[in-house]
Amino acid sequence: MNFLEERIVKDGVVKPGNVLKVESFLNHQMDIALMDQIGDEFKHRFADKPINKILTIEASGIGIACSVARAFNAPMVFAKKSKSINIDGEMYVAEVESFTHKNTNQVIVSKKFLSPNDHVLIVDDFLANGCALNGLIAIVEAAGATVEGLGIVIEKGFQDGGKNLRAKGYHLESLAIVESMNAETGDIQFRVQENA
Amino acid sequence: MNFLEERIVKDGVVKPGNVLKVESFLNHQMDIALMDQIGDEFKHRFADKPINKILTIEASGIGIACSVARAFNAPMVFAKKSKSINIDGEMYVAEVESFTHKNTNQVIVSKKFLSPNDHVLIVDDFLANGCALNGLIAIVEAAGATVEGLGIVIEKGFQDGGKNLRAKGYHLESLAIVESMNAETGDIQFRVQENA
Repeated sequence: MNFLEERIVKDGVVKPGNVLKVESFLNHQMDIALMDQIGDEFKHRFADKPINKILTIEASGIGIACSVARAFNAPMVFAKKSKSINIDGEMYVAEVESFTHKNTNQVIVSKKFLSPNDHVLIVDDFLANGCALNGLIAIVEAAGATVEGLGIVIEKGFQDGGKNLRAKGYHLESLAIVESMNAETGDIQFRVQENA
Repeated sequence: MNFLEERIVKDGVVKPGNVLKVESFLNHQMDIALMDQIGDEFKHRFADKPINKILTIEASGIGIACSVARAFNAPMVFAKKSKSINIDGEMYVAEVESFTHKNTNQVIVSKKFLSPNDHVLIVDDFLANGCALNGLIAIVEAAGATVEGLGIVIEKGFQDGGKNLRAKGYHLESLAIVESMNAETGDIQFRVQENA
């Protein structure tokens, strides 16, 4: 197991319905030393890419993306969720369904902060069905920028998001891929990865 | 002028209605080196306090709070905004009005992450009327924890939030206090502060 898988086993809690709670260190309370380890690991895994910008989506991606941006010495941009229909033309917009909240958000990024010169690493805390990630990819591509990679902290390998994105040819790195979880025993099975 | 005031003058944009746009470096695109300078400055200003936890509110406070938490070598907790009325008793809750979005949010923090042993520095990007900050203070005090200080990046000195919090005796440090702005000329007047 790598450092993240070890931490998930130690402090993650499996809930019924394939829910993995990591709120004690990742997405409610945040362990900053762990964030910096995550940032360094993505820097290592995407070392050959000319990445000059980190993109994520509010809210729980922000802390992670800050540490990744520090590792790459690059600015970070976070997409905002908006319910408003009055977008003034200065924004890239994507529709993103949320299964957690059972609604659809507009996700927006100001056109000022993405351009055809940008080589973007998109990062987020979780990947399940891939709705949020696909929205961010659509925004980067609408800007004429390049998606250099996708960096995910925890992928739910039993949902289709990761499989579909890899099939499309994106360079997706997930630091931990959960294959299965058992809420009764608390057991978590990770996919064995070469570079993990 | 301190480093932040200089950056606001260089890259901030004044809009009609006393709106200061700092989205190129603070709350949409984020300059990580600047975040770390902000973290170090709060560490300096609250050096005599036994701070062991940083608290902020999603979304734009998170990146700042990560750098502050790094400077203090402490965990960071971000309060979540929630519209749901079904809070399960495991959460501290405060009602926070948003003037920007013209609505009221419930702001929640899990009881697991605040206890009477905690000495908390609350940080946020903006302070205007103080609604968000008062909600976070209420949550810390409901937990029996101690509010050691309030660290704000930009205070709107012409609104009452800062004045009221100082009158209540809280140790509030704002790295830049805007006294007035002129959308026609772009001019920004800062309050002169001893330690700025």
